[in-house]
Amino acid sequence: MPGPLGPQSLREIDAYWRAANYLSVGQIYLMDNPLLRQKLAPQHVKPRLLGHWGTTPGLNFIYAHLNRVIRQRDLDMIAVWGPGHGAPGLVANAWLEGTYGEIYPDVSRDADGMARLFRQFSFPGGIPSHASPDLPGSIHEGGELGYALAHAFGAALDNPGLTVACVVGDGEAETGPLAAAWHSNKFLDPLRDGTVLPILHLNGYKIANPTLLARLERAELESLLVGYGYAPVFVEGHEPGPMHQAMAAALDGALDAIAAIRERARRGATGRPRWPMIVLQSPKGWSGPRMVDGKPIEGTWRSHQVPVASVRENPEHLAILESWMRSYHPQELFTADGALASDLAALPPTGPRRLSANPHANGHGSRPLRLPELAPLAVEVLAPGRATAEATRALGAYLREILVLNREARNFRIMGPDETASNRLDAVFSVTSRAWQAPILPGDDHLSRDGRVMEVLSEHLCEGWLEGYVLTGRHGLFATYEAFVHVVDSMVNQHAKWLKGSRALPWRRPVPSLNILLSSHVWRQDHNGFSHQDPGFIDFLANKRGDTARIYLPPDANTLLCVMDHCLRTYDRINVVMAGKQPALQWLDLEAAAAHCAAGAGIWGWASNEGDVEPDVVMACAGDVPTQETLAAVEWLRRHVPDLRLRVVNVVDLMTLASPELHPHGLDDATFDSLFTRDRPVIFAYHGYPWLIHRLTYRRRNHDSFHVHGFVEEGTTTTPFDMCVLNRLDRYHLAQAALRTVPRRLGTRGDHAEQALRDALAAHHAHVCRTGEDLPEIRNWAWAERQASTQLDPRRVEGDIMQGS
Amino acid sequence: MPGPLGPQSLREIDAYWRAANYLSVGQIYLMDNPLLRQKLAPQHVKPRLLGHWGTTPGLNFIYAHLNRVIRQRDLDMIAVWGPGHGAPGLVANAWLEGTYGEIYPDVSRDADGMARLFRQFSFPGGIPSHASPDLPGSIHEGGELGYALAHAFGAALDNPGLTVACVVGDGEAETGPLAAAWHSNKFLDPLRDGTVLPILHLNGYKIANPTLLARLERAELESLLVGYGYAPVFVEGHEPGPMHQAMAAALDGALDAIAAIRERARRGATGRPRWPMIVLQSPKGWSGPRMVDGKPIEGTWRSHQVPVASVRENPEHLAILESWMRSYHPQELFTADGALASDLAALPPTGPRRLSANPHANGHGSRPLRLPELAPLAVEVLAPGRATAEATRALGAYLREILVLNREARNFRIMGPDETASNRLDAVFSVTSRAWQAPILPGDDHLSRDGRVMEVLSEHLCEGWLEGYVLTGRHGLFATYEAFVHVVDSMVNQHAKWLKGSRALPWRRPVPSLNILLSSHVWRQDHNGFSHQDPGFIDFLANKRGDTARIYLPPDANTLLCVMDHCLRTYDRINVVMAGKQPALQWLDLEAAAAHCAAGAGIWGWASNEGDVEPDVVMACAGDVPTQETLAAVEWLRRHVPDLRLRVVNVVDLMTLASPELHPHGLDDATFDSLFTRDRPVIFAYHGYPWLIHRLTYRRRNHDSFHVHGFVEEGTTTTPFDMCVLNRLDRYHLAQAALRTVPRRLGTRGDHAEQALRDALAAHHAHVCRTGEDLPEIRNWAWAERQASTQLDPRRVEGDIMQGS
Repeated sequence: MPGPLGPQSLREIDAYWRAANYLSVGQIYLMDNPLLRQKLAPQHVKPRLLGHWGTTPGLNFIYAHLNRVIRQRDLDMIAVWGPGHGAPGLVANAWLEGTYGEIYPDVSRDADGMARLFRQFSFPGGIPSHASPDLPGSIHEGGELGYALAHAFGAALDNPGLTVACVVGDGEAETGPLAAAWHSNKFLDPLRDGTVLPILHLNGYKIANPTLLARLERAELESLLVGYGYAPVFVEGHEPGPMHQAMAAALDGALDAIAAIRERARRGATGRPRWPMIVLQSPKGWSGPRMVDGKPIEGTWRSHQVPVASVRENPEHLAILESWMRSYHPQELFTADGALASDLAALPPTGPRRLSANPHANGHGSRPLRLPELAPLAVEVLAPGRATAEATRALGAYLREILVLNREARNFRIMGPDETASNRLDAVFSVTSRAWQAPILPGDDHLSRDGRVMEVLSEHLCEGWLEGYVLTGRHGLFATYEAFVHVVDSMVNQHAKWLKGSRALPWRRPVPSLNILLSSHVWRQDHNGFSHQDPGFIDFLANKRGDTARIYLPPDANTLLCVMDHCLRTYDRINVVMAGKQPALQWLDLEAAAAHCAAGAGIWGWASNEGDVEPDVVMACAGDVPTQETLAAVEWLRRHVPDLRLRVVNVVDLMTLASPELHPHGLDDATFDSLFTRDRPVIFAYHGYPWLIHRLTYRRRNHDSFHVHGFVEEGTTTTPFDMCVLNRLDRYHLAQAALRTVPRRLGTRGDHAEQALRDALAAHHAHVCRTGEDLPEIRNWAWAERQASTQLDPRRVEGDIMQGS
Repeated sequence: MPGPLGPQSLREIDAYWRAANYLSVGQIYLMDNPLLRQKLAPQHVKPRLLGHWGTTPGLNFIYAHLNRVIRQRDLDMIAVWGPGHGAPGLVANAWLEGTYGEIYPDVSRDADGMARLFRQFSFPGGIPSHASPDLPGSIHEGGELGYALAHAFGAALDNPGLTVACVVGDGEAETGPLAAAWHSNKFLDPLRDGTVLPILHLNGYKIANPTLLARLERAELESLLVGYGYAPVFVEGHEPGPMHQAMAAALDGALDAIAAIRERARRGATGRPRWPMIVLQSPKGWSGPRMVDGKPIEGTWRSHQVPVASVRENPEHLAILESWMRSYHPQELFTADGALASDLAALPPTGPRRLSANPHANGHGSRPLRLPELAPLAVEVLAPGRATAEATRALGAYLREILVLNREARNFRIMGPDETASNRLDAVFSVTSRAWQAPILPGDDHLSRDGRVMEVLSEHLCEGWLEGYVLTGRHGLFATYEAFVHVVDSMVNQHAKWLKGSRALPWRRPVPSLNILLSSHVWRQDHNGFSHQDPGFIDFLANKRGDTARIYLPPDANTLLCVMDHCLRTYDRINVVMAGKQPALQWLDLEAAAAHCAAGAGIWGWASNEGDVEPDVVMACAGDVPTQETLAAVEWLRRHVPDLRLRVVNVVDLMTLASPELHPHGLDDATFDSLFTRDRPVIFAYHGYPWLIHRLTYRRRNHDSFHVHGFVEEGTTTTPFDMCVLNRLDRYHLAQAALRTVPRRLGTRGDHAEQALRDALAAHHAHVCRTGEDLPEIRNWAWAERQASTQLDPRRVEGDIMQGS
């Protein structure tokens, strides 16, 4: 049988494959008698059979062949296994390589360890049935499907020595995110990035259906993959011998082609290369039972999960299982004490070259980001509420400095759906460009093969690349429109789950946080209309665990700088930062901003007039536009009802509102009460859906006095201020709400003030309908100097949340 | 110039295109002087310029050519415009066709109407800047990108006479959902479904970047589209004359090819046809200003939005705008009073053939679904909590009957990601199959060209198809795993926004609700682990408006039938129904179930022992597993602490908990108090994240006494009961919580009971770790007969929510 493998290599690689298959079946079925030294009996079998056999033998086949080329070429390689349901195979291979026993000494590479290996799988207190953080060498959760290729490309970026093998199941290939991710090759620099080798695994079936790609004519499928920009090589069949030869040849060919592409790039070639890929077409449940109960299993959808299910009850099924397991000849593969036979033990790579021990995948080797001094980048704020600035523009300058400071390290990227400039972060383009490997034409704006900004109109790709990038120890920021970040709800969800799992594993190093900047937010999508207005991502994230989720609402530019400076120093978090891009009034100078952000929430004494007694009303705010409207309401009230004692509280770190037992950033009750009082009415102007504030504060003493204004699903194309009015978040409604909490105290003065507010709203409405613009007094409003003290002294609360975690 | 258009036709179609372009520019810029009878002056220009010019002339070009073929072939056609940013063009065309003025009499087809048309665009109180429900003939919101093709295919299903033209922007084409949707052609039956004609519009640029597809070599792009299964025809250029001829020829060719495919299908051809598609490569901002301020505009990304921006301030810009608008020769296009010149007025189709007036798109022609009697399908429940059934299996039989009853109408489909059988709805396969146009092989399970179940491993496609299907007046159900429905958060969000907008428009008929069944839910994904466990979609939907979102948690099979029977009768809603698929105890017979569901929430008297006095503790529950655990806790407490007076309240319709001013299903306070008492402790076992219950009830009098147990992000692969224990939702923790609310009343008896509960939890833990299974007393638990009254009498609350809305 012709091919690159000599007879001994062929025997060995096939034996290794059988060993992995044997261990995979064992994990799904056995809780005792792991080496089959006794005849298989019902009591050796788990009472509850869970696991996915169908994809597993194909993954084991690929794994064995990757091992061969890693050894042969001394490759620095990690693998992303899209069909994470094949965890039994991946765990088996990590065990065969010895990594598993090194990390989990109980599950050693011997008979006892094998017994534990089998028992723990899909067993309470054991490991999940899908590839999860427990699996050494993995950066990819195997539950939800769609993100394998994006993760693989993210891992390859800025790792020029790395090859990322990425197995794409033909089920996963039907998802949108995966379909889009093939085009990632338009962003990969053959000189400065690593390589992704996609292996499309066509095993033909999903749970009960054939897969789309497996039912295309070969020519149509090839056309599709060529159209995606790849040079596919097909490996198809079911006889192990020829398949081993074909796979070995395909891998050799692909790796030779990759080496040639990289060599050409080193010599200055600039065209986008046509990267190789492999299509492996093998039977689902390969090497498993052919028939059970008269129905075909191998090569059909029936092998998806547990192919023979009634093993404890049905002697015929038990016999099928035993003969299936013995068909791998375990006695040839393992010594009497369960160690790997010596000729097989020499097959896998060793040390950090093992796929299960590559440092890239286990969080090792991450370098902290060098961050610039904030002082030279701060916006000058001589007094609150007079100067205007664009918060994200200030952030753009900060990001530019990060790019400069880490130019050599090449460990920071910015991802976004073509909105970096729209979000006013374009200062970064003075020191870098957008990554682009396709042709560049005159008039193109800041495209280069080496750009550190990655823009593609797919939030899935942006998020997936960044996940792959941070999971391999690098740093980054995903900047996107607030309303459309819901596109990646599910990806962020799965990343949060990954972090929960990995944080519990001491052998996994912390990975840099996933940082998401939401700009062009609900209050400033007045021009784009209702479809672009949605603040619900905060609610989504607030359901995640306190040790993972962080939500920041900096009210102005300097607080944004402080928040982002903090986020980029953190690990194992999902940080979401909300920031407007439009010119807006500035409140805090850098020193005050730093103190305010460190506390997370605080009283703005310069805006309050409570004096030495408790205020009549607390005017609280979170978010840039709510802060502006609150201060305008306060100014209005202080002018019209000067004896009303008001306190302004601003919240930057939303989770300070939660009780400390629910979130580590939650203020203790005494501090919370010192801000929000124990019994005074609180008018809370909030960026998002109002009920989140209620849910975060429902255990607080003063909760029943909270009146929250926020987005109540009233949106359209209108003016910025009218957006606030529609949702009753504007200064006039806030002032009205404050007045209504103290009706008896004010008497007829309150009635007059209410009338003035109604008049103001009517005047606004008339003007907007006539001109399409907000009134000049709205557009040009600034915090009146007579009310601003010359000193910024946000009263600090105890503790220093940001430094702490 | 050769081509299908004679000289006069060419002149006319070009004039029509110019008219649409003129009206588009007018909408973006002008608030007065619509016909340019006066020299353009700054005061004629809107103070705030909003809109997207770049894509608009291409859309107008396509629109004019679709008009030609509709007339020529008397086509029944709707169009889905992916680049919804091009709303000015689409609105202009609806106005040119007269539809706009018919629907909005103020915006008539004359000079006054034109003035209003211009002024209203992107203007407060007017219309949004993206295609929205206001646009007659549209079923597709033009904000978030990615769903055009899926919507188009959904609309074409079961509409054999319909052609759906679908314009795909090259920006949108980068998204995952769009990339996946090309493969929808594997599901379209050329005999029984309509046709989708994709028109990929390559104008080369997004906001600031080139697009990926526009920078592929022609051969690579062609290979990609052939790989997607299409026969692409390219129309490329920028000179109007040749472009008109090329586009007319391409459309004629495509429609001829479609007709031939359909004819072959009628004659019995069975192979999957290679459907035609058109690639239109035209300059971005075509016919707009070439240069502004020395920078090229037409054909570059700079024409994306408003190509010349300082018109009111800069006389040079004003002159550019005027000369641009006059370049369309408005005096040739419109009469002196603003009507369309008579030769042009004859060009578009008339009546319901107009793209803006096709009944398919405007909600007309929807037929109610015929629904079966529930009685023969109900699960027999002689007494609560003894028999077991799989709720979704009962639902499967119900869906089967729907398919039978509506076989002729062909107006019901089921979509899902290959989980119909896994979710135990497989009774439907006794009367239908899965739709599949690719080859069918021996061993395939229920595939046919005519199947009414559509399975693809893409939640995006399932959701998008169903949206297109219901928006064109048909009915359906999307059944999917609870955890992964987050994949379509953003799509559901945009559909909710569409419904909010369309509900306000009397000329749009209500469309059947979007029904989502979430099975394989968090409490029964014990076998698949943490990645498959997430109940957060409810929270997401609860942020939507009360007039749109409905959330049902039927506790057993008969309540599931009643809920689904209700949902399938509703219009303009998003109904989410949570239902387990595992064998579970049954509580209510059909009559009791109907009454309970009609009320939405009620006291289960047969499970309570409060007698005639107020209970000591209310044991509330929502969701099937929480209901079971609550009843088990109640049973335990009644056995061990018999004098503790307990009331069981079950909630089916989650929104009954909300205050009526927040949701139309919210119970009035008196009714709410009659269920939950005014001051007694409430132990609430809830399916999802516990804080949602707090947020829904925070205005209720007894809110501070609510203790909610739910999913607190503790998940793994374990036993079903252990999932509950990990999250403290199990019977023992619920009983413990109940005991702790009345410590003084119980004294040492309470301590003994607590000890017994701790012992029970310890016994559970030990058993599960040893065997991997739950204790037999857990697995085999049934509501003890001695406690069940022989009669089912759920105490009804006032009102009949389900009948009402």
